Order: sequence, then structure tokens, then C-alpha cells
Amino acid sequence: MAETKKEYDLISVGAHPDDVEVGSGGVLIDLAKRGYKCGLVIMTEGEMGTGGTAEIRAKEVENAAEILGADILARFDWGDTRLEDSYDKRLALAQIIRDCRPKILLAPYPHVGHGRRQSHPDHVASGIITVNAANLAALKKADLTGEPHLVTRIFHYFLPPGVIPNFVVDITQHFDQWIKALSAHKSQFLNPEKSRDYIESLTAMARSFGMQARSKYGQGFCAVEPILINDIMTLAEIASETEKKVDPH
Amino acid sequence: MAETKKEYDLISVGAHPDDVEVGSGGVLIDLAKRGYKCGLVIMTEGEMGTGGTAEIRAKEVENAAEILGADILARFDWGDTRLEDSYDKRLALAQIIRDCRPKILLAPYPHVGHGRRQSHPDHVASGIITVNAANLAALKKADLTGEPHLVTRIFHYFLPPGVIPNFVVDITQHFDQWIKALSAHKSQFLNPEKSRDYIESLTAMARSFGMQARSKYGQGFCAVEPILINDIMTLAEIASETEKKVDPH
Amino acid sequence: MAETKKEYDLISVGAHPDDVEVGSGGVLIDLAKRGYKCGLVIMTEGEMGTGGTAEIRAKEVENAAEILGADILARFDWGDTRLEDSYDKRLALAQIIRDCRPKILLAPYPHVGHGRRQSHPDHVASGIITVNAANLAALKKADLTGEPHLVTRIFHYFLPPGVIPNFVVDITQHFDQWIKALSAHKSQFLNPEKSRDYIESLTAMARSFGMQARSKYGQGFCAVEPILINDIMTLAEIASETEKKVDPH
Amino acid sequence: MAETKKEYDLISVGAHPDDVEVGSGGVLIDLAKRGYKCGLVIMTEGEMGTGGTAEIRAKEVENAAEILGADILARFDWGDTRLEDSYDKRLALAQIIRDCRPKILLAPYPHVGHGRRQSHPDHVASGIITVNAANLAALKKADLTGEPHLVTRIFHYFLPPGVIPNFVVDITQHFDQWIKALSAHKSQFLNPEKSRDYIESLTAMARSFGMQARSKYGQGFCAVEPILINDIMTLAEIASETEKKVDPH
Amino acid sequence: MAETKKEYDLISVGAHPDDVEVGSGGVLIDLAKRGYKCGLVIMTEGEMGTGGTAEIRAKEVENAAEILGADILARFDWGDTRLEDSYDKRLALAQIIRDCRPKILLAPYPHVGHGRRQSHPDHVASGIITVNAANLAALKKADLTGEPHLVTRIFHYFLPPGVIPNFVVDITQHFDQWIKALSAHKSQFLNPEKSRDYIESLTAMARSFGMQARSKYGQGFCAVEPILINDIMTLAEIASETEKKVDPH
Amino acid sequence: MAETKKEYDLISVGAHPDDVEVGSGGVLIDLAKRGYKCGLVIMTEGEMGTGGTAEIRAKEVENAAEILGADILARFDWGDTRLEDSYDKRLALAQIIRDCRPKILLAPYPHVGHGRRQSHPDHVASGIITVNAANLAALKKADLTGEPHLVTRIFHYFLPPGVIPNFVVDITQHFDQWIKALSAHKSQFLNPEKSRDYIESLTAMARSFGMQARSKYGQGFCAVEPILINDIMTLAEIASETEKKVDPH
Repeated sequence: MAETKKEYDLISVGAHPDDVEVGSGGVLIDLAKRGYKCGLVIMTEGEMGTGGTAEIRAKEVENAAEILGADILARFDWGDTRLEDSYDKRLALAQIIRDCRPKILLAPYPHVGHGRRQSHPDHVASGIITVNAANLAALKKADLTGEPHLVTRIFHYFLPPGVIPNFVVDITQHFDQWIKALSAHKSQFLNPEKSRDYIESLTAMARSFGMQARSKYGQGFCAVEPILINDIMTLAEIASETEKKVDPH
Repeated sequence: MAETKKEYDLISVGAHPDDVEVGSGGVLIDLAKRGYKCGLVIMTEGEMGTGGTAEIRAKEVENAAEILGADILARFDWGDTRLEDSYDKRLALAQIIRDCRPKILLAPYPHVGHGRRQSHPDHVASGIITVNAANLAALKKADLTGEPHLVTRIFHYFLPPGVIPNFVVDITQHFDQWIKALSAHKSQFLNPEKSRDYIESLTAMARSFGMQARSKYGQGFCAVEPILINDIMTLAEIASETEKKVDPH
Repeated sequence: MAETKKEYDLISVGAHPDDVEVGSGGVLIDLAKRGYKCGLVIMTEGEMGTGGTAEIRAKEVENAAEILGADILARFDWGDTRLEDSYDKRLALAQIIRDCRPKILLAPYPHVGHGRRQSHPDHVASGIITVNAANLAALKKADLTGEPHLVTRIFHYFLPPGVIPNFVVDITQHFDQWIKALSAHKSQFLNPEKSRDYIESLTAMARSFGMQARSKYGQGFCAVEPILINDIMTLAEIASETEKKVDPH
Repeated sequence: MAETKKEYDLISVGAHPDDVEVGSGGVLIDLAKRGYKCGLVIMTEGEMGTGGTAEIRAKEVENAAEILGADILARFDWGDTRLEDSYDKRLALAQIIRDCRPKILLAPYPHVGHGRRQSHPDHVASGIITVNAANLAALKKADLTGEPHLVTRIFHYFLPPGVIPNFVVDITQHFDQWIKALSAHKSQFLNPEKSRDYIESLTAMARSFGMQARSKYGQGFCAVEPILINDIMTLAEIASETEKKVDPH
Repeated sequence: MAETKKEYDLISVGAHPDDVEVGSGGVLIDLAKRGYKCGLVIMTEGEMGTGGTAEIRAKEVENAAEILGADILARFDWGDTRLEDSYDKRLALAQIIRDCRPKILLAPYPHVGHGRRQSHPDHVASGIITVNAANLAALKKADLTGEPHLVTRIFHYFLPPGVIPNFVVDITQHFDQWIKALSAHKSQFLNPEKSRDYIESLTAMARSFGMQARSKYGQGFCAVEPILINDIMTLAEIASETEKKVDPH
Repeated sequence: MAETKKEYDLISVGAHPDDVEVGSGGVLIDLAKRGYKCGLVIMTEGEMGTGGTAEIRAKEVENAAEILGADILARFDWGDTRLEDSYDKRLALAQIIRDCRPKILLAPYPHVGHGRRQSHPDHVASGIITVNAANLAALKKADLTGEPHLVTRIFHYFLPPGVIPNFVVDITQHFDQWIKALSAHKSQFLNPEKSRDYIESLTAMARSFGMQARSKYGQGFCAVEPILINDIMTLAEIASETEKKVDPH
């Protein structure tokens, strides 16, 4: 496990050993390739999953992190299928935020889906803990070491139906490596005891996000307020370049 | 009036002589200052407004355009309070789009507000004509001269309540010049016969958008799909720089 | 038909001869009993209805208006099943608004239902014409006689599913008389050729609105913006008195 | 073209020659295989499409209809890119409904998308005409021949983002034949002049609907009110059988 | 209390002794009449209700269950007005699910109402526990006896305003027996100390659901994703048969 | 601290020492001026705020309460940044409700924002505790002294984006005094160590609510169901009088 006293540009938080890869892996690969420093925090050991064990999954997440080019900052054992927001957990994550001083936090969507389909309770809980920890990390009086740190933005992955992403990050270029990172979670996605073709499902999910924003493969995120832009033309330039690659007519 | 055969980066479309200034003026000032070329299309002469006349308002919009640093590409006389989508109007605007080849179109929100508050019917109509014209301009077989042109993105201003902007463009630096551009519409906003303090209202509107995205003054836009991003860190960088200016603690 | 030059407190607009009664009849009865002056405008003759004819329905609406205590200000023949917003229709209704100077306009919800269930196109059209006419009536330059008149508020009835009313008016005290007014439309609601029990359905609708706001029978309305209140305690007092009548424990 | 005097179980309506196939083709194949009689109505000749001509597309739609096992009931020439609701068009479609007496109508979603992404105006218009025509067909006094006919349910395809389908019909078994029907539209989907891989996009769309309801490939529909069910256990049985095929663990 | 080792088709879960009857009673009666096996789980003894005591209400629920034709699988004493999701409660319900192996679970809507009106916290908690228990019951590693069991679908009753049901089950035929089952809860609904006419309110609620889906009396449910359908014609057939009974013209 | 055995018209509940002032201060001033009796309940000591200490803030809230003309009924020490709904807290607040017998309760919005922007967890928790306490206070069997009391209506302040207020209370006349009450919280809003101009932000918020309902300054509230009205004309009269003051043309 990496020492946690260096500064990080972005931390992606997950409830189970494969959440970060599924929801934000393509973005992490992109950032690592361009020299940004990304960290991972995993809140449970995923010990209740049908495939694998806590030990096997710990090894898998190390392999996946290497493929992503990200450092594992912490792996907590906060209880698979029973993760709940609590003050102690907020403090533990807030300390990591103070130490690593990321500009961006990524975490699962912190509300149960409105309208339809309930989110997994561990996912919702991990999103709530993250938002609350970010709040604590910025408070001068919080019972934490180090200087207060205000994360610039928190974005959420694992959006329930009816929550349209604010923005989609194009991951077309990194698609193969993303699949490689997912495949590191053998016990989950390439387990012969499980009959479903998980890699196909995850590909379809990325394709579906991509279609929404007119790219090929994408990962969608929900911001907690409107995105702040200073140059509206960049939105057209990004779109135009990406579409040229997808659909070169 | 500018000749329309040059290429433009962005065209902002309005129903009345002051719509473009109110909804997108700060953004236009910003683009002009950074060397982008912006054009304006105004669909009616605003002859039904309580203040001013078609002639007075034509002069005002010229003054405003100069302050914005944008060219007036066309002023149509399509009927204040009675603007309606029609094939001829779509073709007329589509021809301008083909000639000017903008990457971005700005136009009023093209749907009546869902939930509450009806939008002005002219605003809705101008948004619909713009969306339909953009579609026609890209069709090889449309009855238009010049090469087909596909606008990269259309963004909408004049969002009804309940439509949260996808993104807000910070206009804090350009706020004074924006007020100057609005003030060019003397018959509308500085008319002693009208008792309301319009400049105060418009300032409050910009402040309200700014608050939503954590800047000082802003203009909000709704995209027709999730925004496509290629570098998630830029979102933090923009936010971080803007907030430093607004709130330098 | 009443002469239209007197001032009215409220005008309720409908597309067909029974719309106003169904959507706002209980409220009209209440206002008449307390000395307010209410007028009705009906946009089509309802000639396409399975029961009745234009002539029969004209007579029925006169009987209903008498039971409501409201004046019929105008009955237009703008085409049942083919009503559409047009500038001429806006002007015709705007002239009535200028002449009668109502504080409140009631009209069907002017948008097709969002999400599910399409509204009857005549209903939507009558709502749109009303909103646009109100706008015209306030414009100094509109091609109308008389002084400009700004209607204070427009409220909508016939809300599609998913549009929760802003407010419900309790009509429990006037329920019997409302049923009497509905029953004046014999060709529609008491027609032995039609098998459905319409009076039962309309009762269930009023009961359903009543339940939403904790009264017995109600009629629900959607305002075009948040309601403006100057004394928050009146909201509790109204609720408390009404509930005492419904549920005197 | 089929003679239109026979009775049909379902009519699927589209604005352009390939809409019905894209939005409802898998369902039509399923119904034909089980002995139901389905008809198609196409409102424009699709003459503005980049690929093909009115003549070529007419031939293609005949090939597609044969693959679907459906009859073409009518092909109107109501103007590609300029389709608009009008009374004459409502009457023309209402006459077909009276003649064919379908239980179900399928048509594009009849509202512009709320929230984001505008629908194609021809699609919205074709949905509106269909809803209005169904209303007319049931009116005794409509200027139509034959007996009044009340369609039991109208369901919509081409749902804009943010409109979650009420139900998804599993088309996994018919997927290959659906692709075959789409491929009959060579000028649109297999046109070497167009660079985009349309068949891939349409596959991704079907996969995306399938994922939402836990099947492999699906087509999603929005009902105009809650679905009426008489046996809640059938919902579990359908789900259970379909999932067994998709994911046989 | 029934022994719980037999297989059940459906389990309906409630927070208080009368919830299951109010929200799903008509559906349970229908299933019992057609030979399906339904079970009930009640999470609290309802001891805080103004009428009745834990003992009286236990007797009432037994009478009601007999009228419904359903077996009481478990009655927990988890605290009226203080029900909360916890791991132990999830496990207790998950064990029942494993033992009874139902295809369908019914439970209150598991989110506080979005938009307006807060749901009763016990209702929300009972919905959340049910969703989480269903998840646990399917996990091989859960600390439970018996084989993992995956419930096919979970549907929710007690929908807050603004949540339109996905589907409504027609209960017109079983209406009288449903009222009989409700009347078994004498201490709640026929208590002379309480002045409100509860049976009238519950009837109005069923009528209101019925109206939404064009039947007479109904119970509405929200699915957690689009309903999966394999034969679209059955939707028309059910509607057509039901409407014939309601409205035989 | 005031003795709590007198009857109150309204109680406003907050999580931190300044919440009640920010969200409902103008309304409290208005009520006090007209002779109504208002009380305040504050759930935490605000000890985690960057400015001030528990002691300083206690003094500030006393000053603010005096300016508002409201009595402090209770100040709890339930943990700033860690407030959570619990049965004990519900009981404590329910006892105050029984003792003070208010008609109206004001409290923060009790749900996390749907769509975007998470509410502060303490705010959400204080709203939930309030709703649950109100429920308990009305139950005969609750473990409380005094007679059951049913609060007539609960209204919420601190509405997340996307939650449009049901109603806005005009506070234009009381604006200066409201600013004075806010300024009593020196450690929060006039702290030279903090660089942000908080008073400007709070003014902009009040202006933004005012604009939504066409007054100058306002405070917005969300009711838990449609507002119940008995005289629709009062809505026009309030609007008309307020607008005359704001905009006297």
C-alpha cells in the first residue's frame, strides 16, 4: 500500500473492491497517462461477494490499481452488505483527504434512486460518507491532524435510472485498458461459476453513456451543482474532436 | 449590418432585440475579448414592447452589439408577440448557419416550462426555429446554397424554473461591460416611464446563476445532452481559479 | 348573454361547454355566494361530443352558469377537436380581458402532460390561448380598445398526472350545488345512451383532490410560479378550520 | 400495398420510412410469429435523408415490412423535415384506424423531451397526429366512414432521455431478424458514403433497453397512464423465464 | 401462525398490522382465489396506534389474514414509530425469504417522497429492510440456512405523491371482500372513538388508483425498473376486458 | 431562556445557531410585529463552525432572537456535524411541541436534494427529527406528558436546487431588520477572518426567492402537500398589493 503523505490530484472512493474500476476506471487511466496522481479508497473487503474471498479480492484490486496507474490509499474493513455512515468513518476518510489534498473526489451517487430502482445500500452509504468526510476535512476545528483542505469538486458515478449525467468523460481511447483493469477482478467478472457475461454488460454500460454524449465509450458523472465553465468554446472543441474520432465523415 | 459570408465561432439567436444580451451577453463579451468571432440573429423588431419603437430598438441593438463585440448577422421582422415556427423561417436561419458555419448556437430554451411558469411564446418559438434550422443546415438535400454544416453543440438560455442549468459560465470579470450592453437598451431598461428597476433585476438574475455554481456572476445554459469532457481535471481547475477570485480565503 | 363592459373579479375559460364546470365549478359557486363577480368564456360549441348538439349544449351551459352564479361572457365557435392557438383568437380573448379587467384567470393546463398521459389537445390549446391573450391585454401597443390590463394571476385546472397542484380549494360546502351544476349538462353526464357513471367519476376526482390537501372535496390548481403569501399563519388557520369540518375529533 | 379493410391487432406509425423498424421492429416480428396481424403507417417519404431517395426508400420499406411480417397500410407524402399536426392529417389516419380497428397503436413519443435533448420535430408531430387521430376515430360525429372505434391503448417509442420506459418488451429471440429488417434500409444503415456504424448504434440502443429491464435486447415503451394488470404473478413469470434465457445460472 | 417451510408465490411485508391490507389486500385476495399461496410479514405490533393494543391488533390481523386467504409468516416486535433498518432485521427477513422462496415481494415504497409529503418513517424503513433482505437472501455467503434465493421482482405500495404507479392491479371484483378485510381492523377503521370515516377514505384511494388506469377500483404499485413484457397484446387484452366490466357501452 | 409552558403560534427549528434566522427570520419578524408568538429550537451548539465557539454563538443567538421577537424554547447539544435522527431526540422535541402547541412548525427540508447538490447532513437530520417529533406529539400513547397535539402544518426552508417552493412569503418590509438579525451572528457573517461577504450572499438568496414570486425579497417554503385554500381571491389580492409596492407603475 502506498504511503499516504503525498499530494494527490484525485481520489476515487468505492464500497467494494471493484466499484472504483467499474464506475471511474477509464477516467483514472486517462489521468495517469497524462501525469496526474490518483488514489483509491475502498471501504469494505467485498467478503460477501459470491465469487472470491477477502484475500483473493485484495490481490485483485492491487492488480487492477496497477493497470489503472493509481495508488491504493486505504482499504477499510467496514462490512460488506452492512456499510453505514458513522462519525468515525467520516473522520477516517477526512484524515486521508487532509493528508492527500485532492482537488477532485469521485464516489458513488449518495442518494437512493428517485423514481425507480434502489441503489445498493453499500454504494449509497459510501457516497454519503465521502460527502460528509469532505465537509469535515475543510473544518478548522475537526479532530484531525494537518491543515484544513477544501476539495474543489465532488462528482458521483453509479447513477440510478432517471439521473442523467451532467457530463460524460470520453474513454474510447482507453477502452481496452479499462477492460484489462476490470478483468483483473477475475473472481467477479471472469468466474466460470457465474454464468453471466459481465464484461459484455460493462461494455454495454460504457457504450450507453457514450451514446448519450455522442462519443463511443464513456463514463457518466453527476455534479452536485451546475458545472462552472470559463470558456464555452472548449465545450465545442472537445465535442468536435471526439466526434471526429468516433464518426470521421 | 455585417456581411454574412465569413465564418463565425458562435451565433446567439434571440426573439426580441434585447434577448441575446440578457441571456448570453456576458459570454459574448468574454469570447470577443479572447478573439473569437460571434454573430447575432434577432427574429422580431420588438415593436410590441411598451417602451421604444422598431426604429429606436434597431439603433439600440446596434449599440449593444458594438459593446458586446459581436456582429449582427440578421434582423428579421417575423412579428413580435406572434412568432411561430415555420418552414420558411427554418430555411432562412439555416442559410445563415450554412454561410457562417458556427461551432456553437445559443438560443432560448425551446420548450414551455414543465411544472410551472410558462415561457414567453416568442422565446419558445425562437428556440424551436433554431433547433430545426440547425437540423436543416446539416442536410445535404435541404433547399439551401453552400455546403452542409453540422453545428457541434446547441446550448439554451432563458431556462424556466425547474430546469437547472447544466453549466454556468462565470461572467464576473465582464459584469460591468455586460451592464453597459444592457444599458444600451435604454427604451427597455432605463425608461423613466417604466417604474421597475430592470438593471437591478438582471443583476439579481446573474447573481443567482453565479451562486448556483459557486462564482459571483454567471449565465446559465442547458445542453441538449450530457456535456462531453475529455479531461476531468479541467473542471476542478476552472472552479478553483474562479473561486479564488470570488472568495480569496 | 351578459354585456361584457362591467368589471369582473375572475374569468374562467374552457374549451368545451362543460370544462369550466368540471375544473372550477365549486370555486365559482363559492365566489358567487360571497359576492364576487365571475365570468365564463367558452371557446368551442362542443359539437363533436357523442351526446348533445351545439344547440342543446348552449342551453345546458346557460343552465349551469345560472347554478354557478356566473355570467357567460363569450361563446366562440372555434372548432371542437380542432382548437388551435392563433393570433386572432388571442386578440379576441384579450379584448374581453381588457373590457372585464379580472384579477384572476382560470384556464386548462397549457402544456401536454410531461411523463405520461396526453392531455386533450383542445384543452391544451385553450390554456395556451389564455396565457397569450393575458400577455397581449397588458401591452399598450396591442391592437385592442380600452386601457391595458395586467391580470394578477393565472391558475390552471385539468392537471395531467405528475403535476401536483400548488393549492387545492376546499369545495366541501358547495359540493351538492357543484353536482347540480354538472347535472345541468344532461347530454354529457346523465345521458342514458352512455353507460358510464360520469357523476361518480367527477365525485371521485373531487375527493381525490380533497384527500391530497386533507379536506373532503376539493379542486386543484397549478400556479405559474410559487404562490405569494404575506401572512403564513393564514395557511394554518384555513387548514385547521377545514379539517375541523371534515374530521371533527 | 395491402388493402386496408381487414382488421388489425396493432398499427405502428412512423414519420420516416425506417422509424417503425427502429422503434418497434422486434415487437412486430414477435407478433407476426405468433399469428397477430400488424400494420404500418408511414407519414413521409423520407426524401430529405442524406442517403437514398423517396423511390429507393419506398422499396426498402417494402422489403423491411416483409421481414417484419407486417402490412404497409399507408404511406403518406406529408413532408420530410416539415411534418405538422393538422386536422386533415388527423382525419386521414383516423379513417385507417376505423377501417383496421387495431387494439394497440404504437407511435413516437408525442412531446419534446423535457429536461434535455430535443426530439426530431417530425417524430414529435407524428406522435401528436396519432394521438389526435385515435381520439377522432372514436367520435360518433367525426367526418369519417364506418363505425367509431376506440383503440384500447397507445404506447410510445423513441423516448427522450429522462423518460424511463413503463415497460420493455424482450426481443432477444428476434434480435437477428430485427437486424435483418433494419438492414433492408440499406441507404440509411449500410450506406458506404456514411461513415457511422449505424447497426452497431441500434444494437447498443436495444442492449441498453434490455439492461434496464434485466433482459438481453429490448424495446422500451411509454404508456399514457399506469399499465392495467389483472394478474400480478404474470409479471414475475415473464421476468423469470426471460432471465433464465439471458443468464442461466 | 403458519409453519414457514413451505414455498410461497408472494410475500407482502408491512410495518404495522394493517399496512399489508391497505396497500395490497385486493391483490392478495385475487391471488388466493386463483390458488396462489401468499404470506404476510408484519414488522411491528402497532402498539402506538391511537386505537387498539398489541393484543387486540394481533387478533385483528389474524382475522384479516383469513379473509385475505393469506398465511401470517412472521410478526416481529421491532418498535412502532421507531422502526429502523439494521443488519439483524435484514437477516431475520432474509431467512424467511430463503425458507419461503417467493417469486414476488410487496413492501412499502422505500424512499421518502421526493418533492412533497413525507412518508411515515416506519413505512420507509420497512421498505428499505425488505429490499436489503432480498439482497442478502440471494448471497451464497450470507449467514443464513438453506439455499440462496433470488426474488424475481419487488414491487412497492404506499407511493408518495409525485410517484405515479408503474402499474395498477384491478381489484374491482374483489372490492367487497377487501373492505371486509379492512373492517377486520375494527380498532383502526371502525373505532367509534375516532371520528374520521376511514373506510370512505380507503375506498376513495382505491377509486383514485382505478381512475388512473381506467378501471373501477385498483391498487397501484411501483416497480424498481421498467416492467418486462414478452407479449404486448396481453396489455390490450387485460385493459379491454376490464374496461368492458367497468363501462359496458 | 423562556419558560416553555405557554402556547405558541409557530415554532421554527434549526440545526445550528443561525439556521432559523437564515431560513425563516423575515417571517418570524413579520409574525412578531403582528402579535403572534413564535418560538425557536436549536439542535446543536454550532461548535464546529470556523468562526465563534459554543459560548459566543449562544450569546449571538440570544441577540438575534431578541431582534426577531421570538423566544428560544430549547438549545440542545446534539452534536454539530454529527446530528442524527434518534428516538430520544424525537421525544425531546415532541415534548416541546406538546407543551407549546404550535399551529405551524418550520424546519429544514428533510430529504437530501434530489437530482443535484447534497444538503448539509445536519440540516436534513433536523428536518427528519422535526417531522417525526410532530408525529409522536399527536399520539395518545407516546411516552410524553400533557395532551396530544396535532400540528396543523409543517413547512420547510433550505430547499435544495430543483425543489421549487410552494409558496414565498414576502419579507420586503422587514428586510432591514432581517439583516440586523443576521448581523447578530457576528462570528459567522461579519467575521474579518472569513473573506466571503456573507451578508451579500444572503441578500442575493432573498432576492432570488422574491423574484420567483414577483416580490422584492422573500423566503421560500415547501409544504408537504398542496396548500389548502378557502378563498382563491385572496391569492390575487396579496399578489396585487405586494407588486404595487415593488413595482408601482
